[in-house]
Amino acid sequence: MNYQPRPDDVGFLLNTVLGAVPRLRALPAFADFDEDLQGQVLEEAGKFVAEVIAPVNRDGDEIGCKLVDGQVVTPPGFREAYRAFVDGGWPALSAATEDGGQGLPSALEAVLYEWLSAANHGLTMAPGLLHGAYECLRHHGSDELKARYLSKIATGEWLATMCLTEAHAGSDLGQVRTRAVAQPDGSFRVSGGKIFISGGDHDLSDNIVHLVLCRLPDAPAGPKGLSLVLVPKLLPDGTRNAAQCERIEEKMGLHGSSTCVMRFDEATGWLIGEPNRGLGAMFVMMNAARLHVALQGIGLLDAAWQKADAYAHERRQMRAPGPVPASRGAEPADLVVEHPAVRRILDTQRAWIDGSRAIAYRTALQLDIARHDEDPKVREAAQRWCALATPVIKAACTQQAFMGASECLQVFGGHGYVREWGIEQVVRDSRVTMIYEGTNEIQAIDLLVRKVLADGGAGMSALLIELRDELDASRETDADVQRRMAQLRYLTTTIAMAAPQDAKLAYEVADDYLRVVMLVFLAWAWARIERCAEPGDVRWSEPAAAFRRWVLPEFDMRLGIVKRACEAVTRLATA
Amino acid sequence: MNYQPRPDDVGFLLNTVLGAVPRLRALPAFADFDEDLQGQVLEEAGKFVAEVIAPVNRDGDEIGCKLVDGQVVTPPGFREAYRAFVDGGWPALSAATEDGGQGLPSALEAVLYEWLSAANHGLTMAPGLLHGAYECLRHHGSDELKARYLSKIATGEWLATMCLTEAHAGSDLGQVRTRAVAQPDGSFRVSGGKIFISGGDHDLSDNIVHLVLCRLPDAPAGPKGLSLVLVPKLLPDGTRNAAQCERIEEKMGLHGSSTCVMRFDEATGWLIGEPNRGLGAMFVMMNAARLHVALQGIGLLDAAWQKADAYAHERRQMRAPGPVPASRGAEPADLVVEHPAVRRILDTQRAWIDGSRAIAYRTALQLDIARHDEDPKVREAAQRWCALATPVIKAACTQQAFMGASECLQVFGGHGYVREWGIEQVVRDSRVTMIYEGTNEIQAIDLLVRKVLADGGAGMSALLIELRDELDASRETDADVQRRMAQLRYLTTTIAMAAPQDAKLAYEVADDYLRVVMLVFLAWAWARIERCAEPGDVRWSEPAAAFRRWVLPEFDMRLGIVKRACEAVTRLATA
Repeated sequence: MNYQPRPDDVGFLLNTVLGAVPRLRALPAFADFDEDLQGQVLEEAGKFVAEVIAPVNRDGDEIGCKLVDGQVVTPPGFREAYRAFVDGGWPALSAATEDGGQGLPSALEAVLYEWLSAANHGLTMAPGLLHGAYECLRHHGSDELKARYLSKIATGEWLATMCLTEAHAGSDLGQVRTRAVAQPDGSFRVSGGKIFISGGDHDLSDNIVHLVLCRLPDAPAGPKGLSLVLVPKLLPDGTRNAAQCERIEEKMGLHGSSTCVMRFDEATGWLIGEPNRGLGAMFVMMNAARLHVALQGIGLLDAAWQKADAYAHERRQMRAPGPVPASRGAEPADLVVEHPAVRRILDTQRAWIDGSRAIAYRTALQLDIARHDEDPKVREAAQRWCALATPVIKAACTQQAFMGASECLQVFGGHGYVREWGIEQVVRDSRVTMIYEGTNEIQAIDLLVRKVLADGGAGMSALLIELRDELDASRETDADVQRRMAQLRYLTTTIAMAAPQDAKLAYEVADDYLRVVMLVFLAWAWARIERCAEPGDVRWSEPAAAFRRWVLPEFDMRLGIVKRACEAVTRLATA
Repeated sequence: MNYQPRPDDVGFLLNTVLGAVPRLRALPAFADFDEDLQGQVLEEAGKFVAEVIAPVNRDGDEIGCKLVDGQVVTPPGFREAYRAFVDGGWPALSAATEDGGQGLPSALEAVLYEWLSAANHGLTMAPGLLHGAYECLRHHGSDELKARYLSKIATGEWLATMCLTEAHAGSDLGQVRTRAVAQPDGSFRVSGGKIFISGGDHDLSDNIVHLVLCRLPDAPAGPKGLSLVLVPKLLPDGTRNAAQCERIEEKMGLHGSSTCVMRFDEATGWLIGEPNRGLGAMFVMMNAARLHVALQGIGLLDAAWQKADAYAHERRQMRAPGPVPASRGAEPADLVVEHPAVRRILDTQRAWIDGSRAIAYRTALQLDIARHDEDPKVREAAQRWCALATPVIKAACTQQAFMGASECLQVFGGHGYVREWGIEQVVRDSRVTMIYEGTNEIQAIDLLVRKVLADGGAGMSALLIELRDELDASRETDADVQRRMAQLRYLTTTIAMAAPQDAKLAYEVADDYLRVVMLVFLAWAWARIERCAEPGDVRWSEPAAAFRRWVLPEFDMRLGIVKRACEAVTRLATA
């Protein structure tokens, strides 16, 4: 079965739970935005994803991208689907109208990308970096570069890449060696090799705009000597630039996206922003990209859930324990969904999907607020949310995508391990999301070491207070969330006090700390969802119950791991 | 890199920790067995696995099995490797000498299969069922059948399959429809379709012996109407039987093993054991097979660890926090292994591998004791161990194989997601072990519902007392294990009391209960290992510490989940 977006579910979370529309309308940029428009966009997006993007997913995996005579050929149907995507104006959803975009909120774009990823992760990789490239160029590009490339990128007419990794420089970008040499005409000559370049070559758009991280002659060593250069596949005069895909990787999954080894041989490019400030310009792309990766995780898990849920409602095996289920009829065996172990798997994934959606959509809303609110203090608070929440959901949602898709595969028994049902593709595809745009371990270090501990936990504390204010302490569930928030604040202080005594401590417990934060986020989300849902609506009450029974117990475990690690360090230091 | 068995590690666990040799020598069947012989077999097995089995693993995945003109062709090198396996006498390791076997303990066979699986899971599937088929035929076959097939199977000259699953009957074997009709000459005509038959066809041995679960005319419905029929690929007169592989599955992994759709069209066969008692005869195979699957899990995790450990000692990325590591030298970046998150991943997997080995090898020893001890009470206790421990290690070791291989993949960053290093193959291959021979959810139900609760927890309690007697309560670590054992006993009682009030309860918490048991097993194993290892030997002390820091905290979490579920049921019942 192909993925089927469900706009009603998303609308409930965006509007009833998060109050998106009034919050957005309060921003001058979206003064005309309303629920009707939002509903219409979601409805159309859902239809487009289901009818155009989802059907070519299977060929994307089974046929995949191929390198033919130095050119990447995408799987059957990908060109047409991408053309329809551009023609429908979907790539330009949140780009400014003056650049050819539709000027809609990031929150809607977030939903669109979640659905696209659920329906066809491979194809979605192609436009996945467009928005980041657009923002990067818009903020840091010269007027000339913007005139030449900005609207082409905003509309998706030309696709973009992010060329960071080199064979010896993955997580460690300071080691990048690709060189760029200034030319008298103001252009640069770029030479070097890059690996793991998603969409480094393809046949979806005529031109491809590479944003290449490189080093100018005599630049300082390390990450502070990196510059960003725009290198197009086709030069402005239409001739081919010396930027070539040498090889595409054989991967575990994501066969619908070409992962290219790129060779730049004195390729012509133009500097974006200041020399040696490339990493800063690139981080604009990376933060947007990290939110998108979190949404990929959510989408892929929802895709896995839809497959498993459908199978569990059609396959019969053995008698289920307990009262005779209504679905039994005269059948000798019960539906798989009646078996408690299967019910638990399915409800647990829904707990993750919908709780994560609330947090990810909230992050997208905060992006809109950070960009458009008139009050600098409000913008700052929104930026704080994005800085702290993005690594949390990037890591947690992608891990759950893989783990949860594997659980969903289990619902199929042996049938899950063969290609037929498409569930094993989700497991293979989703695995990469735990790695790219910064491995999940790096997200955890980013959160704890670079962000939370950098201000002694003040930012995290402020964020939690903000969330707490949206709870209703008179409700038992909400009070429980508040209690956990207090525990998290105390934990943060404990780490902040112990960390100076052992430089490794924070790095050792960063993953656990990130999980604690995510579990607080999810607990908050489910408290909000339960308050907003119709009482007794099983669509929301069952995942809420599953969350408390099967997901939330991890909170105490992680808390304990971090606490004991801190205590051990303190004991050693005082011994 | 190819898998490299390490006989010293295994020897330490078998001898120093488990005291295998004296225990085995006390059995009349192994009176001549000694440490020298054991050391020699392990040394030779290690060499054989590294030199013959491991090198063809990659082609097994990348080229895989193909169906050509109705015959399965195995990957390049598989025929030769299997021939060497037979010629070396390895399939017959634990088979009786009168059947052409070597009469060695199951414990050694367990180690051999762990290593084989680590080196080449696909190829190992072929002889993986030999031992089960041998035991089944030996115990239930007629003299005529035994004369014709037993030594061929014992020596691996002919391979065997287990034909259970049908398209509509996976976990639910009661629904099997394949029919067998008695003929005047005492043979049977077998007709029907089977799916997911590992090695249903191949070119590794001339003949293939299928043990087919089927239904005689007028047999009772359900599992009590199943019979077991031996259907050879080649009939005794050398002609081809009507047992045909129709298709092989496209799978997520394990491409080196053919997963066949089999068609039996009035194929000739002979009944094994009594009519309608087929399931019982087959269970002899399945219990041995489940231990082997646990060992596959352990082997695959060790293979993943070896790859990640080697990569982490060669790849450099970023500066590690904390004191300057000796490995830094003049390099601008530190070895990946110096980063705490990587260290944690590697040590945690070792904690699982070596702890699980101790439990799995103990189970294999108990198999030897259950078969050969002169005292029926001792045999009974050994059988109890096998019955209770087998589902635990089948489920827990296979889940950790997949999860842990995925963690090991993470050590490689983006390089782990591409084929080059072979780590993603381990993730794909290992996934099936959570499904076959009874899904892990079914193992958990088997443990809790069918075994533990069936006697009110008495068997589990006796098993724990047996383990407790091997601890030294004067040591802090050992006392902690005893405390957890007491908690597990109390938990068992709690479930036993609550279960009658809600038929679903035990099914809902079976997975958590199984994890609690496994964590107690592992805690016991590491307490024993620590007591036996040289003080300060980091080979054992570091995984021991990792076990306590990162693995054991799950114990309280699982305990809490089960407890709360029981309390909720009891509250409802008394409300």
